[in-house]
Amino acid sequence: MSEQRHRRLAVLTRVLTRMPGRQVNLNDLGRQLNVAKSTLSEDLLLIKESLEGAGLGVIDSQVGASGGVTFWPALDAVGLREQLHQFIAELSNVDRLTPDGFLYVTDLLFSPSRIDGLGALLAERFRALDLDCVATVETRGIPLALATARALRVDTVLLRRDHHLSEGSSLSINYLSGSSRHVQSMSLARRAPVRQGRVLFVDDFMQAGGTARAAQDLLGDFGAKVVGVGVLVATHEPADKLVEDYSAILEWVRSDEGVGQVFPSDWVRRMVKWEDKQ
Amino acid sequence: MSEQRHRRLAVLTRVLTRMPGRQVNLNDLGRQLNVAKSTLSEDLLLIKESLEGAGLGVIDSQVGASGGVTFWPALDAVGLREQLHQFIAELSNVDRLTPDGFLYVTDLLFSPSRIDGLGALLAERFRALDLDCVATVETRGIPLALATARALRVDTVLLRRDHHLSEGSSLSINYLSGSSRHVQSMSLARRAPVRQGRVLFVDDFMQAGGTARAAQDLLGDFGAKVVGVGVLVATHEPADKLVEDYSAILEWVRSDEGVGQVFPSDWVRRMVKWEDKQ
Repeated sequence: MSEQRHRRLAVLTRVLTRMPGRQVNLNDLGRQLNVAKSTLSEDLLLIKESLEGAGLGVIDSQVGASGGVTFWPALDAVGLREQLHQFIAELSNVDRLTPDGFLYVTDLLFSPSRIDGLGALLAERFRALDLDCVATVETRGIPLALATARALRVDTVLLRRDHHLSEGSSLSINYLSGSSRHVQSMSLARRAPVRQGRVLFVDDFMQAGGTARAAQDLLGDFGAKVVGVGVLVATHEPADKLVEDYSAILEWVRSDEGVGQVFPSDWVRRMVKWEDKQ
Repeated sequence: MSEQRHRRLAVLTRVLTRMPGRQVNLNDLGRQLNVAKSTLSEDLLLIKESLEGAGLGVIDSQVGASGGVTFWPALDAVGLREQLHQFIAELSNVDRLTPDGFLYVTDLLFSPSRIDGLGALLAERFRALDLDCVATVETRGIPLALATARALRVDTVLLRRDHHLSEGSSLSINYLSGSSRHVQSMSLARRAPVRQGRVLFVDDFMQAGGTARAAQDLLGDFGAKVVGVGVLVATHEPADKLVEDYSAILEWVRSDEGVGQVFPSDWVRRMVKWEDKQ
């Protein structure tokens, strides 16, 4: 009996936590495991108490005919601290500096094992905002935007740099990049499902914030509202950004020699209980 | 005692399966749960037998000083069948046809809940090839490429459409798109970490295969070898593609009226035990 329950607990825990944020139906579960509802309830309560007690996440119950349970994983602060330390060390490698003074980071941005945790961090920062989707502009912010959207259980809206025939008619805007003063453009297909939505704009990098502001304007033309802006790295200069409010995971103080200083923002330090290493 | 073990089994199962494909260290685990190694081994064996018996995945053990266990989740055939049916229904909606005869699908491609499972499917198809990375070309194949790379526990290499100053020096090639006979270009930063690697090329769409072949050529210039090509959708016409071998998740037979027919490829049917619905 006990052996059977042991096995059931392992299987149930896996099935419950397999798809974070997605409801697992209780009737399906009972049928699948071939157990009575009362037994299932008892097991679920034990798993809920165990995982919540160990700080691994929260299990919500939804009652009624389509009743089920949903698992929301907790941030893994220990793992995130380690990832951030490693990410900062990789960013700060002088070999990444190009002769023109840029930092080559595309490989880091497109590494799921490095970016997924950072997306979960941004999602946690903005979870209370009741978001309908995450928007990003091509190309390098896409992996972080997708990771954030996944953790929030929403979709991603892609703002294009050019208008693409394959997307049908689009709305486009031109804007001045806040730092280089170059004319840039951004467009969004009229078919994009963002109307009236509450949007989180995510990008890899913010300097003056011109791109984030253009995204606000373009999404505004669709009746959508950008209620949050999250970026991976923001530069200290210029201190006045073109958007009122934003959350950067990392801050970057440039230097004439080498890469300069990269460190986590205050909200990240609090969230992962950061300690500076010597 | 038993109650304590019950709780430990729930916590252990969650910790073991939280990061698929990543090793969990046994010493860390023992310390974290405050149990003796023998107790831990007994619990791990039970969890292994339970999850493997239920077809939920495989737990591998690595012995030695840095010993640990790694969980590899099984494909969720039931969930994937449902996702594929839904995805095909969404693709086949005539409202997605633009006046120029394209299908608007960007919103579907950028939806983690729709794409992640399909990436896991591609990963399973190519897992035996001992891959070093996944490569894709911007922009719409990126989410599928990232999902595939995540399931394979490797990084993604981004081929750009233009050369970007911020990435330092790049290699570029021009090629003729196999279907439209337009000149296209593709470039890769010299700093991209792909040298000598075994690469899986992933894209959203294949018509004649010109893009996949150009990616093979460009990556070849870095000493890397494209050992597999995976796409979300391949068109039946032209039947002769410019790459020798590829795996499409879905096949699309175009029609003059409406969207035409979209259905899963044979290897997908086998993998998810597909049954056509009436």
